[in-house]
Amino acid sequence: MKRSLFGCLVIAATIFNAATAFAQEMIRYTDAGAFLMTGKAKKTNAIYQRIDSVETKDMTKAVQGLAKNSAGIAILFETNSTVIRAKWKLASEVFLSNMTPIGHSGLDLYCFKDGKWQFVMVAKPAKGQIDNDQIIIQNMDSSMKQFMLYLPLYNTVNDLQIGVSEQAIIRTPAQPGINTAKRVVIYGSSILQGASASRPGMAYPAILQRKTGFDVINLGFSGSAKMEIEVAKYLATVPADLYILDCIPNPSPEEIRDRSYNFIKYLRQQKPSTPIILIETIFRENGNWDRKLGKNVSNQNEEIRKTYERLKKEGITNFYYISSDKLIGNDHEATIDGVHLTDQGFTRMAEAVLPLIRKALK
Amino acid sequence: MKRSLFGCLVIAATIFNAATAFAQEMIRYTDAGAFLMTGKAKKTNAIYQRIDSVETKDMTKAVQGLAKNSAGIAILFETNSTVIRAKWKLASEVFLSNMTPIGHSGLDLYCFKDGKWQFVMVAKPAKGQIDNDQIIIQNMDSSMKQFMLYLPLYNTVNDLQIGVSEQAIIRTPAQPGINTAKRVVIYGSSILQGASASRPGMAYPAILQRKTGFDVINLGFSGSAKMEIEVAKYLATVPADLYILDCIPNPSPEEIRDRSYNFIKYLRQQKPSTPIILIETIFRENGNWDRKLGKNVSNQNEEIRKTYERLKKEGITNFYYISSDKLIGNDHEATIDGVHLTDQGFTRMAEAVLPLIRKALK
Repeated sequence: MKRSLFGCLVIAATIFNAATAFAQEMIRYTDAGAFLMTGKAKKTNAIYQRIDSVETKDMTKAVQGLAKNSAGIAILFETNSTVIRAKWKLASEVFLSNMTPIGHSGLDLYCFKDGKWQFVMVAKPAKGQIDNDQIIIQNMDSSMKQFMLYLPLYNTVNDLQIGVSEQAIIRTPAQPGINTAKRVVIYGSSILQGASASRPGMAYPAILQRKTGFDVINLGFSGSAKMEIEVAKYLATVPADLYILDCIPNPSPEEIRDRSYNFIKYLRQQKPSTPIILIETIFRENGNWDRKLGKNVSNQNEEIRKTYERLKKEGITNFYYISSDKLIGNDHEATIDGVHLTDQGFTRMAEAVLPLIRKALK
Repeated sequence: MKRSLFGCLVIAATIFNAATAFAQEMIRYTDAGAFLMTGKAKKTNAIYQRIDSVETKDMTKAVQGLAKNSAGIAILFETNSTVIRAKWKLASEVFLSNMTPIGHSGLDLYCFKDGKWQFVMVAKPAKGQIDNDQIIIQNMDSSMKQFMLYLPLYNTVNDLQIGVSEQAIIRTPAQPGINTAKRVVIYGSSILQGASASRPGMAYPAILQRKTGFDVINLGFSGSAKMEIEVAKYLATVPADLYILDCIPNPSPEEIRDRSYNFIKYLRQQKPSTPIILIETIFRENGNWDRKLGKNVSNQNEEIRKTYERLKKEGITNFYYISSDKLIGNDHEATIDGVHLTDQGFTRMAEAVLPLIRKALK
């Protein structure tokens, strides 16, 4: 058989890579679906998507698509391996000018140490590649440790394999560092979905999840959290100890006027005793300069405040409200582009929401 | 002449765009080179590069390339326009898994308001495009305002045009909000160059520039700040009121042992009275888990501390030192990938360095 030079080089590279891998360490892969999953509203057929396609069929096309993204989903496992690798298959190549590839398409690993979650390292997607295979961390000691691996914020994961040393143990944690029986369900916009966290673990629901130890469900739909009643109907079917509504950035003031009362009223009727936290939209930094934009944001918050006051007047209980001035500080340095929060913005946002979560769940 | 459907659509789109632009506002463009530039070590032939190619010829190939990036360069202008646009031509399409396209290839606009610089908005590079043209902000009031436009951190700018309303004034500020006579020159690694700020204005030299009002010169060379004597020779020719050396992340412990004493000694001999601040490398977050990596970082800092102590023993004055435990907090949440700082990390780093800058320049 004749081979081209390119063909020979491919074969040589394959042999070389195999030899190198052998010289390093033999890796055994396990399907991540074998371990504990957090951040899931309910079970889905495609295991790394947020809402099953059967349940989004009455929602907008945009939400149908975004519900397939893996934002907020994380895998918990424990291992005594000195190395952790991952192979993950993405649905598409993503470009977002306000997101890092690690944020929209990468993986983010934490370890549970002395009762706290501590950052370990990320897995970086390669340019133009939807199938990735990376060492996340190596040269660790061989004590048994519990890890949590966050999935991409703005991409869809079709397959995820976690690799450890061939002789190592890998299993579902006996005592998970996240209590999946305590559930906080958040509905919102691109900010909630995680734009513009540097890596998946820095979106604010992920920060809240680590700080509380609760299972926090990220139902953020970029540009598309417009309070349609179909979404309220779905939310009411999701097991929740607390709902947070952070969806005011997306609907117009008119849509908020038309939809927010019915949306919240429906949720309250279906779940009479579950606390609800309602969050104003952050004020857009460029709205300090663009008067038309600034007016629109003020109008959004004015409309949702009217709904809040109407519901309070009607005697709604277990209902909390956070105004925009409490959310991201006042140095104007919490966003990448006026509206999407950086890690700095998300850290502030989590700190602002955390006391109210504790109060609502006391 | 026969035209394809595609050809017809292109013509139609062009006419439509022109009509839309006309309906909006006529824009007049001015070459950004006409205004005040900050963040430049010296004048260069290609005006948006950091070191002239004539002066890098004895440096490494890597530094020769990176010196062309526009990190730390910003344009100051004032205008009463209600709209600001920019056209910018980049040298290449960049992909970095740990940077946003806005950070590596976008523009970042600030306004000088009540004696402080406040974020306005960014210009976002489009996917796969090296020639970009964007509205940055619109619908502003028509008072005269001073603006500063930061250039991309990890790309090279071949041309930059700033657009304002046809009838508006645009000019170099009469009283610039940055004092270009007071110069802080920083030499360092990818962290200094700006990985992984969300946008150009959030790299720590840019934060220091706004907080001090001084001209801060970003000589960060990703992966390539290895303390070669040729770089010390160049630094000594750059007008400076203060030098900061933040280059310890790049050289190996052996290179630090071999080079750092001569590097600093040379700079001190050439500039006997200019203060020097020496900064240890941040500890790599993944070095808390990867024992080999952690040992290497500890060795880097051990070697530079030896050099510091040797120089102190020799009686060097105006010489300051910052140890790694003071730099980025202790919650392990300041980086995207263990080593490159997010906006949260950069804000902490600026806060850590600022008091020493004030002390050194008192």
